[in-house]
Amino acid sequence: MLEAGTLKALAEAVRRGDARALARALTVVENDPAGAADLLRALGTAGGARAHRVGVTGPPGVGKSTLVAALAAAWRLLGKRIGILAVDPTSPFSGGALLGDRIRMGALAGDANVFIRSLASRGAYGGLSAAADDAADVLDAAGFDPVVTETVGVGQAEIEIARAADTTVLVLAPGQGDEIQAMKAGLLEVADILVVNQADRRDADRFVHALEAAFDLRAGPRPPILETIASKGEGVGEVREAIDARLRPDAQEAVGTRRLERARRRIRAEVDRRRAETWWAGRGDVLDAAALGVTAGELTVADAAAEFAEGKERDR
Amino acid sequence: MLEAGTLKALAEAVRRGDARALARALTVVENDPAGAADLLRALGTAGGARAHRVGVTGPPGVGKSTLVAALAAAWRLLGKRIGILAVDPTSPFSGGALLGDRIRMGALAGDANVFIRSLASRGAYGGLSAAADDAADVLDAAGFDPVVTETVGVGQAEIEIARAADTTVLVLAPGQGDEIQAMKAGLLEVADILVVNQADRRDADRFVHALEAAFDLRAGPRPPILETIASKGEGVGEVREAIDARLRPDAQEAVGTRRLERARRRIRAEVDRRRAETWWAGRGDVLDAAALGVTAGELTVADAAAEFAEGKERDR
Repeated sequence: MLEAGTLKALAEAVRRGDARALARALTVVENDPAGAADLLRALGTAGGARAHRVGVTGPPGVGKSTLVAALAAAWRLLGKRIGILAVDPTSPFSGGALLGDRIRMGALAGDANVFIRSLASRGAYGGLSAAADDAADVLDAAGFDPVVTETVGVGQAEIEIARAADTTVLVLAPGQGDEIQAMKAGLLEVADILVVNQADRRDADRFVHALEAAFDLRAGPRPPILETIASKGEGVGEVREAIDARLRPDAQEAVGTRRLERARRRIRAEVDRRRAETWWAGRGDVLDAAALGVTAGELTVADAAAEFAEGKERDR
Repeated sequence: MLEAGTLKALAEAVRRGDARALARALTVVENDPAGAADLLRALGTAGGARAHRVGVTGPPGVGKSTLVAALAAAWRLLGKRIGILAVDPTSPFSGGALLGDRIRMGALAGDANVFIRSLASRGAYGGLSAAADDAADVLDAAGFDPVVTETVGVGQAEIEIARAADTTVLVLAPGQGDEIQAMKAGLLEVADILVVNQADRRDADRFVHALEAAFDLRAGPRPPILETIASKGEGVGEVREAIDARLRPDAQEAVGTRRLERARRRIRAEVDRRRAETWWAGRGDVLDAAALGVTAGELTVADAAAEFAEGKERDR
């Protein structure tokens, strides 16, 4: 827990864009849900909640990090300051999360206007999602816009994180069986913009056609399908334009709906967290006793939960 | 919601091991948290909560399904009835979850003593984990023992599911960079038993030695590292023995601790779910108003949550 004075100073330094304060604030966000809530209140809405939040997801090995680095370079040419959060799905057990392919961002490493951070989890279910949202708030308050969240989109939580952005970019590559996998997974339904990277591979055209055909079988509009060779920067400008176009006045409604849904989900999750924290404080022993009852075969988990929820929990 | 009479009949049919009832019960578990709680109470603890719950996880492509099928065959020779839950990490968006490699289970498909089911999610965070626990209860009540939960261990939720079992088996294969990845991910810390599958590959020995060395650098005992060629059944008997040995009287303490921890976590999650459901009923409009306030920049998510949690939420 941070003191009020420290918190205020930290918030001010973040708003100034101080890199060390930013790093410290993100560590709070990563490890301490209650501290994160305090910090976000201290940051307020003055400096933030305005950045375009872009989620980039897709299977491993399709070149997501390369694309994100290329996009960051494209935005830099427009004078933008870019925040990048790399969500490592394997991080809950690693302590210090750092994606191996972070290294591809090397060219941007010295640029103070591109802030890159890997994000580990707060441990609990939903913790990674809450941390990602809070971390985006911090980068937003520090003046980064867009804020890009890159996830390896194979796990439930990771796909949800990308999906919760204002704009979700799904990156695929020809081959690898991604085509069928992605369709099965409904990954396609998450995408506002589809990118087929590694478009110089010889099966790329066939892959793009298969994607188009898959969408034509569905109801609703087909999202743009763009081809890139991110490693050479080819096609990246078009992706950058398609992302930016989502905030054009004539297209903003979809983003507005996403933001409202995100606010609703975040408020609910934070209220639930606070209520649960308060409620379980002092009930540890009764919980232990109930758990013992369950493992001894005296009652079911549902029985025990019903007792608690109905205020009839008891010492066993 | 199922009627009490229907529920009782369904629970009885499940306990008899009726395959159609089992399928129906698992569909309830998959889709309806409240219905699942009612069903589990109707099933009671008489028939269940005794099976050995085995979690099998590991990166894609290491042969997990092949190993699980071979293990099932080994248990069949001992007269066991085996329940298998295949948790598909991409399922939240797919509707009907079915792992592509289910097909490798073909040889067991006609055997009524091997029950295989793919498991999708209830949608929310933690939903997949709760559904997996509940589904294992159902299989347990129907007399299956062991109950194996197979996950593709790359996502946070999926690793947690495997980790929550009585016994966690981590499957790796030589090459693929798994070695470094697994160590980075802390996947190794989750494992009670390590299996190096595809042990006929030429880099297998080097890989096993690297794993051993990784453990020797750590505190605590090294879990057994077993080599298999699951596709030929080689080494599978030893894995089966190592799993079964976890329930030997002299080794049971670790499993007991896991079961207590699981019961604690499940009770808590179910209580939180019930309390949140009750609490938010009728508060939808106020939540919408608060979310609008957040997107309009009038307050932060943390402000809004604090108002709710302190009972000071208001119509805006």
